Amino acid sequence: MRKEDLVAEIKRKQSFLCVGLDTDLERIPKHLLETEDPIFEFNKQIIDATKEYCVAYKPNIAFYECLGRKGWESLEKTLDYIPKNIFTIADAKRGDIGNTSKYYAKTFFEYLNFDAVTIAPYMGEDSITPFLEFKNKWVIVLALTSNKGALDFQFTTDINGEELYKKVLRKTATWGTPENLMYVVGATRAKGIGEVRETVPNNFFLVPGVGAQGGSLEDVAQYGWNEDCGLLVNSSRGIIYAGNDTTFAEKAGEAAKRIQLNMHQILQKHGW
Amino acid sequence: MRKEDLVAEIKRKQSFLCVGLDTDLERIPKHLLETEDPIFEFNKQIIDATKEYCVAYKPNIAFYECLGRKGWESLEKTLDYIPKNIFTIADAKRGDIGNTSKYYAKTFFEYLNFDAVTIAPYMGEDSITPFLEFKNKWVIVLALTSNKGALDFQFTTDINGEELYKKVLRKTATWGTPENLMYVVGATRAKGIGEVRETVPNNFFLVPGVGAQGGSLEDVAQYGWNEDCGLLVNSSRGIIYAGNDTTFAEKAGEAAKRIQLNMHQILQKHGW
Repeated sequence: MRKEDLVAEIKRKQSFLCVGLDTDLERIPKHLLETEDPIFEFNKQIIDATKEYCVAYKPNIAFYECLGRKGWESLEKTLDYIPKNIFTIADAKRGDIGNTSKYYAKTFFEYLNFDAVTIAPYMGEDSITPFLEFKNKWVIVLALTSNKGALDFQFTTDINGEELYKKVLRKTATWGTPENLMYVVGATRAKGIGEVRETVPNNFFLVPGVGAQGGSLEDVAQYGWNEDCGLLVNSSRGIIYAGNDTTFAEKAGEAAKRIQLNMHQILQKHGW
Repeated sequence: MRKEDLVAEIKRKQSFLCVGLDTDLERIPKHLLETEDPIFEFNKQIIDATKEYCVAYKPNIAFYECLGRKGWESLEKTLDYIPKNIFTIADAKRGDIGNTSKYYAKTFFEYLNFDAVTIAPYMGEDSITPFLEFKNKWVIVLALTSNKGALDFQFTTDINGEELYKKVLRKTATWGTPENLMYVVGATRAKGIGEVRETVPNNFFLVPGVGAQGGSLEDVAQYGWNEDCGLLVNSSRGIIYAGNDTTFAEKAGEAAKRIQLNMHQILQKHGW
């Protein structure tokens, strides 16, 4: 998907919501366990109930991989089921030497046909550039993550006073463009979002951590907004596990709609 | 597998060789493409030809994932086929927030029953510790990688003069023990191996980069040796693609044997 198409969808739907499909056999409603493919059945109903309110879906690959072949089948069916005007993100956190990253890129961009994949930057340029060679596909580099462990390495300050996450932003921004490169910036670090926005004014951010992890949508919009909106705010557990009986999809739809209404207000404030 | 069992195998086989199963449909001999599962058929013959000379196998997960369900089936069959006294490493470079890393750990340690998995450290403690909770299983953290991109972030020096890769070693070493934590240290950075050995004297290193990437086995042994040997030196393409016709397995066996003989000399020099 091209950036202009994503921006147009945000305007049309009055939403910059990404729904995280962290679909866990241990957490989905019990009645689905009797169906042939409970993971896909859950995702299908979640997608039907939320697709009006979001512009992106983000399957978390760990939850599919842990079921092996069967999990991959559920993932493939889910990807096929998502409407083509919705942006798809493989939350995979991959990254390896160039020759290997090329194969991860084939997996997510060709075999599964995702629009975007999340990438860990530790191995540097040749671990990221193979993903940037695919037309209308996106790399989403981990910059400032929402978890506690982000404090271990990402704020390491070098002798010039630059934190590691800023170095990651500065260097990776020269390898891609705002048309193929986004960043993961955790909602739990609102002030950090502002610093990231100053460093990379034109790139989209994928923002996890609103909801279950405690981040605030208003703070994210205040610090992260740019002229393209520039934000995809993810909620996973807060939406998909809003209910846990036969009304789960309806509850998920309501939870997504609540967030979309907040986003609509933010977008209106910016004249969108 | 426990450390003492791995060390015993190194002594018995006079080898610290790990064979990397980067099995690529585009590079395996053409006659295998007619079999039902070319990837598994190739791996099976490679394993038969090399298992006397190595103590570990390391499938590179990217090469299996890019074939989807079919690739996962080849991977599962390969794991089942590897003799139980040989250490198995999922070269997967995973790492996510704690709740997600738990599912990656289940994938590799329970579903696929690998002994070890490679992990990227960017997201910090809670991305790594879920893997350390599995008994007799190993985490292999990226410290100093063999690729050119290693120079982008891993040598970033903080205000106390500590490089990022050393900070990764110092911090992660407090989360695990030499009984469940190894490090990836590239053979292309011989001097670096010595610095890593000083920082973590007791942990095993997984050393890629000998062979196709240009590192020297003698340098690795000189700088990386410890009282447990402490080294698993990987060769992938140099062994598995030593031949490319019907004699490919034989050629792979010969290539593995040549490295094993060099390792035998190094082990003898240390009185093993």
